[in-house]
Amino acid sequence: MEHEHFMLEALAEARAAAEIDETPVGAVMVREGKIIARGHNLRELCNDPTAHSEMIVIREASRVLGGWRLTDCTLYVTLEPCIMCAGTMVLARLPKLVFGAFDPRAGAAGSVIDVLTTNNFNHKVEVVGGVLAHESGMLLKEFFKDLRQRK
Amino acid sequence: MEHEHFMLEALAEARAAAEIDETPVGAVMVREGKIIARGHNLRELCNDPTAHSEMIVIREASRVLGGWRLTDCTLYVTLEPCIMCAGTMVLARLPKLVFGAFDPRAGAAGSVIDVLTTNNFNHKVEVVGGVLAHESGMLLKEFFKDLRQRK
Repeated sequence: MEHEHFMLEALAEARAAAEIDETPVGAVMVREGKIIARGHNLRELCNDPTAHSEMIVIREASRVLGGWRLTDCTLYVTLEPCIMCAGTMVLARLPKLVFGAFDPRAGAAGSVIDVLTTNNFNHKVEVVGGVLAHESGMLLKEFFKDLRQRK
Repeated sequence: MEHEHFMLEALAEARAAAEIDETPVGAVMVREGKIIARGHNLRELCNDPTAHSEMIVIREASRVLGGWRLTDCTLYVTLEPCIMCAGTMVLARLPKLVFGAFDPRAGAAGSVIDVLTTNNFNHKVEVVGGVLAHESGMLLKEFFKDLRQRK
């Protein structure tokens, strides 16, 4: 239930992205039962290839905590992270990731590649996937369907 | 010679990082024979796990070009990129990467993993490794030796 509670918050962020024509992916960072950072995809608005929701939230959490090690934090994101975001989680020593929909085309938490739970790097991230996956996936599907119809 | 010319600029950035006690890695983004962005590692100063030199330069180049697709650009960096930075190069559709020293512990351009030249993702990056590798590697070795002596 806790996972679903925070995933609903991440979904609210994803909807906020869709409202400004950004791919609807949202994320929240949780520490000691509280949200310390929240954000959504802003790639188009910011003209920034790094402006994925996870990156925005990791950077904001680092700012809030005053350090780049995200000890005791759990990141909730509506979509399986890409390789950039998964790599950042390893660098930030994130203990735990909870994600919504799986991404069979670019997912780096197992779908295409796994950089979070292997022994290849100096940190491993505990991963829970598929939390409210249907809701997260539908939001993306509807967004892209609408985008195609407008083109 | 062109590669060495721009790698020397990246090395100047790496030295600037060392001067402020940041791990000495530097980068420059080149387009049509000109440097359009330059930067160095700022992780400790910014308390930001994403503040690697490549990320700073990719974000700055996107700002300069007014878009997140880094068409016609070549990124020069003194050290083989980590998985976060390599993933970002794929997202930014970077055509070409030139790096200095290989990183056997965390390199994502072939040393530990290769995310740049595989068919797993929707973009491939041409990679040239080992340009002024000795100079780049020595800068890192001296930095960490000095750090250990100070502790």
